[in-house]
Amino acid sequence: MPIVDIHTHIYPPTYVELLRSRTTVPYVRTFPDAPESSRLIILPGEDDPSTPSTSRGRPIGPEYYDIAQKIAFMDTHKIDTSVISLANPWLDFLPSEEAGEAARRINDDVDGLCAQYPGRLYAFGTLPLSAPAETAIKEIERLAGLKHMRGVIMGTSGLGKGLDDAALDPIYAALEKHETLIFLHPHYGLPASVYGPRANEYGHVLPLALGFPLETTIAVSRMLLSGVWDRFTKLKVLLAHSGGTLPFLAGRLESCIQHDGHLKEAGKTEGRRDVWDILKTNIYLDAVIYSEVGLKAAMNASGADRLLFGTDHPFFPPLERDAKEWHSVNANYSAISTTFKDDQASAQGVLGNNAVRILKLGL
Amino acid sequence: MPIVDIHTHIYPPTYVELLRSRTTVPYVRTFPDAPESSRLIILPGEDDPSTPSTSRGRPIGPEYYDIAQKIAFMDTHKIDTSVISLANPWLDFLPSEEAGEAARRINDDVDGLCAQYPGRLYAFGTLPLSAPAETAIKEIERLAGLKHMRGVIMGTSGLGKGLDDAALDPIYAALEKHETLIFLHPHYGLPASVYGPRANEYGHVLPLALGFPLETTIAVSRMLLSGVWDRFTKLKVLLAHSGGTLPFLAGRLESCIQHDGHLKEAGKTEGRRDVWDILKTNIYLDAVIYSEVGLKAAMNASGADRLLFGTDHPFFPPLERDAKEWHSVNANYSAISTTFKDDQASAQGVLGNNAVRILKLGL
Repeated sequence: MPIVDIHTHIYPPTYVELLRSRTTVPYVRTFPDAPESSRLIILPGEDDPSTPSTSRGRPIGPEYYDIAQKIAFMDTHKIDTSVISLANPWLDFLPSEEAGEAARRINDDVDGLCAQYPGRLYAFGTLPLSAPAETAIKEIERLAGLKHMRGVIMGTSGLGKGLDDAALDPIYAALEKHETLIFLHPHYGLPASVYGPRANEYGHVLPLALGFPLETTIAVSRMLLSGVWDRFTKLKVLLAHSGGTLPFLAGRLESCIQHDGHLKEAGKTEGRRDVWDILKTNIYLDAVIYSEVGLKAAMNASGADRLLFGTDHPFFPPLERDAKEWHSVNANYSAISTTFKDDQASAQGVLGNNAVRILKLGL
Repeated sequence: MPIVDIHTHIYPPTYVELLRSRTTVPYVRTFPDAPESSRLIILPGEDDPSTPSTSRGRPIGPEYYDIAQKIAFMDTHKIDTSVISLANPWLDFLPSEEAGEAARRINDDVDGLCAQYPGRLYAFGTLPLSAPAETAIKEIERLAGLKHMRGVIMGTSGLGKGLDDAALDPIYAALEKHETLIFLHPHYGLPASVYGPRANEYGHVLPLALGFPLETTIAVSRMLLSGVWDRFTKLKVLLAHSGGTLPFLAGRLESCIQHDGHLKEAGKTEGRRDVWDILKTNIYLDAVIYSEVGLKAAMNASGADRLLFGTDHPFFPPLERDAKEWHSVNANYSAISTTFKDDQASAQGVLGNNAVRILKLGL
């Protein structure tokens, strides 16, 4: 039985170089008062100059860019195959004329990393969404021909206006045409103001634990409300973190749509596909939710055959220096084990067989 | 078997008068181009002057302030007893010197409404949180002596800085001392910017379906992170909308706390009570979640004996003019019925017996 990790990030050296060349978010920098490790600053709220540099962002070491460390992590946690992806914020900060070339270079690099470990690595590609749509579409076509690519990872910004932007339709059409799965992942989180004046005392907890999942939920709800899946009925989307909060809030979302006078008057409530239909037809959910309660809700929303194991490596490492196994990984293993304790076939599906089937891994 | 609705709002005439006297959010107004019904504007995002007045806020009719309509609604839906509460945004917009008197008047009015229908109505009181803490504490003491009061409803603002504000400690202490349950309810939602440039096309869906639950989740997480339940181990909180998203995200929240370097260095991860302990000891969840998926997650997080039926009346009325029963109510009934189809005792607990026991309704 293969174990496949579909939520695991890599920053290939070309991308790290790009981040080191920058001075505004996102960037990588080694601060003078903490010379032993560089810091990766991804979110605007992580760049607060009033905090010590050791609280800004997170330390970035070889586990972020050295593929051998990814393989070692996989071996430690009995993961046979990983579908690696660039992490947020991808390429949306690049000038339009540079994005296409950067995406090609990074995608080729990532495909090359996969080639070094046959059968152990596949990848989701990255799109140049700040370039003109035809550049992104060309990259979708090119990715379809790269041996190890199994979809694309996307944030919530789209072309800058979110995933309900009508200008994305040609891109959705190309993705649907090439049967390219979107791995939809949080991007920049929510504005820091929503966490209140004491948020800095709580480290990264509120933006990561709550902001990221809501960002995903808002993004997918905007796709739903703008009719993306009414126009692209075969578009497949894998949602990070078990859908953000979509499984739990799907009922409330449907109820709010059904009871909205404005939507009804605008004729937008008739004939649409509802959220439960999308959850069971177009959406896949990773199993990165760290609890049996959450995983069961994800299963009840989409079905056990649409859940896929993930780790979120290299994020959430153990804080103990001498820890070998990662608690964050074991929390997700444990949730799968208890949720499917009487259904080994489903457990094996979530751990790997679903990924093999859905992503055509051909192991 | 009694059916008890613990999430049902009333705007007593004194409160409606107050809102009619105002010209900034929150307010009630009859716009010249829609003279047939007044509109209730609660959230800042609902006050956009570029939208037609009929899209602003919601129509407010006698179902909001006429207690006879509440009773008729209860009869239609076979609800024996309702625990009524003032809806958001309560009194935090009042000048400090007016809040105490307004709270006393409104609480007395609500208690008087309950007295008109013995056994059928109880209430959660409202606190004057813009007044000095001692005024709020006096009202907590006074409410403990009012015959029909069974707790207080609170938004997420607290004294203006959120529920992790250390200045709330004397109020939490008074609530704990008098065994006064807090019904924690969303307040003003999230900033409109988080919903993107097309949000107005989607009516109220995004702020109501997603913003409100996340607001509740952030608020209760801030209480947790600031150690409210480490200091007030007996403080009881009933969370609106099945906890916002807390049951689904509890695992991620715990994981983010355990993996936060800043919290660990600050010594805040040792000895604290974790979210699962709080969910099963201090927190109750209403069953206003509109789906079996969500209700099961709430049950798995807190236990069937801590879930309480609710309707959110008078919000989410049917859009069809001739509808007698409310879809929104039946969605919640249906979720309870399917979730507990093999456990009638738990179903009866959620529908009413839990409320009778927890709120000492003495029916």
